[in-house]
Amino acid sequence: MTPDAAPAPVSAVIIAVGSELLTPHKVDTNSLYLTEQLERVGLAVRRKLVTGDDAAEIGDALRQALRPGELIILTGGLGPTDDDRTRETVAEVLGLPLAEDTAIVADIRARFAARGLEMPDLNRRQALVPAGAGVLGNRRGTAPGLWMDHGGAIVVLLPGPPRELRPMFERHVFARLAERTGVSGIYRRVLRIAGRAESAVESVAYPVYSAWQTADPPIATTVLSSLGQIELHLSTRAPRPEDAERRLDAATSELAAVLGRDLFSSNGSALEVVVGDLLRRHGLQVAVAESCTGGLVTSRLTDVPGSSAYVRAGWVAYSNEAKIAALAVDAGLLEAHGAVSEEVAAAMAQGARSRAGADVGLGVTGIAGPGGGTVDKPVGTVWVALEGPGSARRARRLQLPGERERVKFQASQAALDMLRRTLLRLQADPG
Amino acid sequence: MTPDAAPAPVSAVIIAVGSELLTPHKVDTNSLYLTEQLERVGLAVRRKLVTGDDAAEIGDALRQALRPGELIILTGGLGPTDDDRTRETVAEVLGLPLAEDTAIVADIRARFAARGLEMPDLNRRQALVPAGAGVLGNRRGTAPGLWMDHGGAIVVLLPGPPRELRPMFERHVFARLAERTGVSGIYRRVLRIAGRAESAVESVAYPVYSAWQTADPPIATTVLSSLGQIELHLSTRAPRPEDAERRLDAATSELAAVLGRDLFSSNGSALEVVVGDLLRRHGLQVAVAESCTGGLVTSRLTDVPGSSAYVRAGWVAYSNEAKIAALAVDAGLLEAHGAVSEEVAAAMAQGARSRAGADVGLGVTGIAGPGGGTVDKPVGTVWVALEGPGSARRARRLQLPGERERVKFQASQAALDMLRRTLLRLQADPG
Repeated sequence: MTPDAAPAPVSAVIIAVGSELLTPHKVDTNSLYLTEQLERVGLAVRRKLVTGDDAAEIGDALRQALRPGELIILTGGLGPTDDDRTRETVAEVLGLPLAEDTAIVADIRARFAARGLEMPDLNRRQALVPAGAGVLGNRRGTAPGLWMDHGGAIVVLLPGPPRELRPMFERHVFARLAERTGVSGIYRRVLRIAGRAESAVESVAYPVYSAWQTADPPIATTVLSSLGQIELHLSTRAPRPEDAERRLDAATSELAAVLGRDLFSSNGSALEVVVGDLLRRHGLQVAVAESCTGGLVTSRLTDVPGSSAYVRAGWVAYSNEAKIAALAVDAGLLEAHGAVSEEVAAAMAQGARSRAGADVGLGVTGIAGPGGGTVDKPVGTVWVALEGPGSARRARRLQLPGERERVKFQASQAALDMLRRTLLRLQADPG
Repeated sequence: MTPDAAPAPVSAVIIAVGSELLTPHKVDTNSLYLTEQLERVGLAVRRKLVTGDDAAEIGDALRQALRPGELIILTGGLGPTDDDRTRETVAEVLGLPLAEDTAIVADIRARFAARGLEMPDLNRRQALVPAGAGVLGNRRGTAPGLWMDHGGAIVVLLPGPPRELRPMFERHVFARLAERTGVSGIYRRVLRIAGRAESAVESVAYPVYSAWQTADPPIATTVLSSLGQIELHLSTRAPRPEDAERRLDAATSELAAVLGRDLFSSNGSALEVVVGDLLRRHGLQVAVAESCTGGLVTSRLTDVPGSSAYVRAGWVAYSNEAKIAALAVDAGLLEAHGAVSEEVAAAMAQGARSRAGADVGLGVTGIAGPGGGTVDKPVGTVWVALEGPGSARRARRLQLPGERERVKFQASQAALDMLRRTLLRLQADPG
């Protein structure tokens, strides 16, 4: 197969295989990722399809999509078990005999061995390769992908789990497609904003981005609201990545000017990553005392590789006793103001900071629900406080909507954002 | 059209029409709602499809789905503008001439008039009805839906906006379908398993569930592997909920017999919910000391409403100093065995238990990566230990695959599962 002589695809069909994707509670999201990637090589998706783990259905879907110039990507159904049918069905529809690939067997065996396990015989099915197919290595799982050129069409099989599918696509599929299409790609950028409502973001951003709609080439902008943050998605077409980067950099600068410090990321980074960078840059360590968030703030901070350098310690103290014993919160404060109060949040932050010997302490206390609310302090009432570095002190009362897990996440977002804004001030004024 | 004489559909295809549903940021969710509704009248969705606002594509999708016994629901593309093509395309594929329905025109005109507006001429398109079609009233928009019986198939057109689609389905479609199918619903159950690989679950479960495939009615089983757990999804048809429950109860019992205590939930509950129920039932409180999981174990436990009753306290102690200061871990142990060791995990569990005055202590220490691994203790090495209730003591070494967040989650799963198994033993042997 020489890529130069091989036909260029002109459109794409994505077939997601998996009976669980035909239930009322599960949606195929791989196709969103794949659509984004395919757009970058100039391929539009003309149809998306979901089918169960059923050979007849998979076969029908593939046959109906097969035509010269079509790229057909099937995701899922490559596992070792009896209900995984994609590999065998595609081979049958394309009339390709299957043979066991001994290198793949060795690979899978090694993956099991690394975990001290014997490869079950079932997994040999994953080493079956249709004659003439290209094998796409899977660094994160046992199911290899497959690439088949067939009568002017391209059929690609990818594993269902996103963490296996994505690196496989990026390592083995993207470059091959780009070589064949040679087309100007679509490039995107994601800006993230904390501490403002969607409508407030829209009102300052719209005058800026609406002007780009008539530029040549235009930059398209979408405003998306997700939990605890607002996102602005910019996209534009360009013949070369450098051209796209230059235009998107300029557009980002324009938006940054009107969004100010509410804009926390212009490369799609999560808030905990941004906060971690700032802590590291200033050589500061943080300690966290959590009540209603139950460890979520600390867990998010430690999701970031290398966070052991700046996360000094964390406490989860639900009960008054724990707040007193572990964090030296004054029993009188709890008595006078209640556990959900500015005073107690500040005392928790202070306790965490001093007990851990950290530069900054964060304290979060509130009512995550569904129980525990009162007239004065309904479910969703949360106090977030910060102590340090130096003499910095901040506190904020929030009234958060939604269910328990949503309250927890939004409260953790507010605590991390308070820390971020405090660290940004240090930067502006190092004195 | 008399419903009794009309053919009963046996399966369903959902076709979502709309070019915006083929972009990287938008997913069709109407199909989830429709799937749930259709299952209630005994119809399984065998295929879901997304197509752009393109007559050729819509036509292909419909032709490929048309066959006797099929219910085909098309959503979207019923608007008044030029890019709305569903109505005309369906009429053409089915060979039905369109005629303007004066009652619909009057209806749309009245909707505009109620808002003090004149009906634009464009909207007359929405009043075009294929010969013989049933009109489905839209209380929340201008686009009526359509119902067509065609060669043993049923073709239904619904508007795209969920707030128009849902009431229309409930008022005009559900009852007609129920009448034809005689409402033999589909019922599901989700079983969750911890501590076994997918292939190991398959090898004991397959002999059990494969026998159900030929039962009358059959029970369909899907095996799904997700992070830290394996799921078995069972589904069956039954005329009444009680019949389904009885069959699924029996099936669950059969699987429970071969899966033993690895089966932690047969109603889809998360592990932290199951653990919470057990703690509450035994009147026990837990305290958690976390290093590599960074608060995730405690955060998961506190995701459950009411968990303040049994989560006594949590510590996140990354550094040796924090382990010594906050949890009274012996410096000599850290020196002799290293922070990632059975001895330190056990000392952390013990420290958390005694400092918090809890019944049970959990300790987790390991290397989440990407840095910090050694030859003896590579990234993914994790020790989990438990102390209490009473004299119970357990510890386990894990070697977990994947990146930082995956290692964290799997380690938290192992810790919660260790607690679960310990609590189950209490139940078996209360002495």
